[in-house]
Parts: sequence; C-alpha cells; structure tokens
Amino acid sequence: MAFSPLLQNLVDALRCLPGVGPKSAQRMALHLLERDRSAALTLSGALVEAVEKIGECTECRTLSEDPVCEICSSEARDRGLLCVLESPVDMMAIEQTGGYNGLYFVLKGRLSPIDGIGPDALGIDKLLSKVINGSVEELILATNPTVEGEATSHYIAEQLSDHPVKISRIAHGVPVGGELEYVDGGTLAHALAGRRSLR
Amino acid sequence: MAFSPLLQNLVDALRCLPGVGPKSAQRMALHLLERDRSAALTLSGALVEAVEKIGECTECRTLSEDPVCEICSSEARDRGLLCVLESPVDMMAIEQTGGYNGLYFVLKGRLSPIDGIGPDALGIDKLLSKVINGSVEELILATNPTVEGEATSHYIAEQLSDHPVKISRIAHGVPVGGELEYVDGGTLAHALAGRRSLR
Ligand SMILES: [Zn+2]
Ligand SMILES: [Zn+2]
Repeated sequence: MAFSPLLQNLVDALRCLPGVGPKSAQRMALHLLERDRSAALTLSGALVEAVEKIGECTECRTLSEDPVCEICSSEARDRGLLCVLESPVDMMAIEQTGGYNGLYFVLKGRLSPIDGIGPDALGIDKLLSKVINGSVEELILATNPTVEGEATSHYIAEQLSDHPVKISRIAHGVPVGGELEYVDGGTLAHALAGRRSLR
Repeated sequence: MAFSPLLQNLVDALRCLPGVGPKSAQRMALHLLERDRSAALTLSGALVEAVEKIGECTECRTLSEDPVCEICSSEARDRGLLCVLESPVDMMAIEQTGGYNGLYFVLKGRLSPIDGIGPDALGIDKLLSKVINGSVEELILATNPTVEGEATSHYIAEQLSDHPVKISRIAHGVPVGGELEYVDGGTLAHALAGRRSLR
C-alpha cells in the first residue's frame, strides 16, 4: 500500500523543493497534515502570492514585487559602483556581508552557447547602456569563478573596451580560514596566480 | 537590505517545514521563483487540497481522504491482526517492509498526562470496542519504545485484561546489522532483557 492519492500528490509536490528527497517529503507532508495545517495553508498562500506578484526590478533584474527594488531606489547607495552577478542569491550573499554599498546588476545566468544562452537572455545590452549612459565609475564583475562565469565577465569587459570605466573582477583564492590541504586545485591555482607582493 | 517583503514571507512560510532552516528556506524560495514557478503553483494547490480533503479513516484513524482508508477496506488484509501505532509515519514504515498483512489502529500520539493527552484523545475507547466486538485475534502493540510509548501499550493491555485476545509487543533490541558499540544503552538493555534461548 502506498499513501492515499492526495497525500502522495503532496509528497510528490514537496519533492520539487531543492534538497528534498522522498523521505523528507514524506516527513514534511505528514508533519503539516498531522500537526500544522494552518502553516500548510499559509505556505500555500505565500507560494501563490510570490509567483503572482514577484517579477523583476527594471533596473537590476533582481526578484522584486516593486518595479524598482529597494536597493535600486535607495538614496543611500553609491551609484558609482555597479556589481554584476549571476543570481539574486549571490546578491543576498553580498548584502549579508554588509561590506558593499553600491548597486547591482543581476544577469540571471551566464553565457552558455551550448544551452542557447546568449547576451540577450542575460540583459547585457541593458547593462552596457547603464554603464555607458549612467553614473557608473567602477564595474565589479562578480560572476562565479567557473569557465562560463569567467567567459561572461570577459565578454562584458570586452564590450566596454572603448569606454573609460574602471572594471574589476572579484578576487578568487583560498577562503579565509580555509586550509590549503582542503582547497580544490582550481582555487589553489587561482590563489597562486593572483598572489600579491608583500614588500 | 533584506529580501523584498513577499519573498521574505515565502522564506518564512517555508521554514514551517521540518528540517528547513533559514538558509535552505532561502535557497528553496529563490529556486522556485527563478527556475520553477509552475512547481510552486503545483505545490500550493497540493497543500490546499490535502488540507481541505484529507481527514482520518473512521476505522483506523490514519490520514485518508476517503471515509475508510484503502487498507481498512481491502479484502486482502487479515482482519484477525490489529497493529496499534502512534502515528501514520509508523504505519508507512511497516507497510514499506511488505511483511505485515493485518490491519492498523493509529493512536496519533501517546498517553502524556503532563500534556493533557489521555485515552480519549488517542481514540482508545474506539480501539477497545474494535477488539472486544470485532474479529481481532491478536493485538500487536507497536508504540515507540519510549517511556510514554511503553506506558500507552501497558495501559491498553490492562484495559483488555478480562478479554481473551492475544496481545503482543513488538521486539526491541539491537538493529539488524547494527554493531553493539554504536547502540544506545537503553536499546542494549532491552536487547539483553529480551534475549531468547537458542537451545
Ligand atoms: Zn533593483
Ligand atoms: Zn483505515
């Protein structure tokens, strides 16, 4: 015997969540139905509302229910700095460090000719015109240190070769507190190639 | 800066799921909104439908959208065996072994005077009348091997002291394939006390 059809539906639907396998989905479904039906309804409503109302910021392309997101519309941010990222998660990660006060541009992906993802899909035209016509003094390329992320940053930098804006790439290397022994080879190679002279 | 309000709502709502912390909830919300909005709507619908339509089986109290669940209404099950469990999860666990063909009764809890959970809340009256007036030949008490689970099984057995039904308790001991070294003390004590003579 399996679960009743509706319970099985719910278990299957929960498996669409990243990191949720069959056992966890089962535990989640039973927990909600046995102990927390009001939380299940709250979650259901939050899902529909988020899907229906959250679109993207017209300035930076991050997830936002307002046409212009809170960061892009804030007077307190430094409009001379523009940080280019692959995803809203990366944006949250940088915001949570509290160490950056500029603006962002979220590509929502990276160049990947194999998957048919070109500059258009990433809004690169928009990014370039923001840089060329706006107040950007420094463009910080913070795509991931993968082959495709590097290619994407390289492509953007190339498109701006005739424009006098400062362009930087975030540093890659051994994580702070990391031990060399446990760092992967690619990172270690980056760390060596990017070494700085101390005196 | 935090997330936009609706995104934060969704992250908070996802945290009601067991085993989901702030980081996973954030990852789940962004995954759904960036890559799988249709899955988010499917999950939302499955939640509402489950909450609205899944009640309990009038015979065994397990979660079911039908008045009588599939197991209780099956002709193929042995109506002489009744296994008493604390929760529908336990029922699924036993079903998945494929080694049991009787019926179940789900208490949905255990006696816990401190929390005000008495025999009424667990449907014990109903269980007793099923045993006394029905076709049950053996009652298998499979509550958890905790103090409260043991007390619950003990209470049920006591209520039936005048009724000639066979009553058994599932065996507790060292898990098959387990090593003594890694088994907790309580289990080990159970395993010793429940030892069987080999010759
Ligand atoms: Zn924005
Ligand atoms: Zn039933």
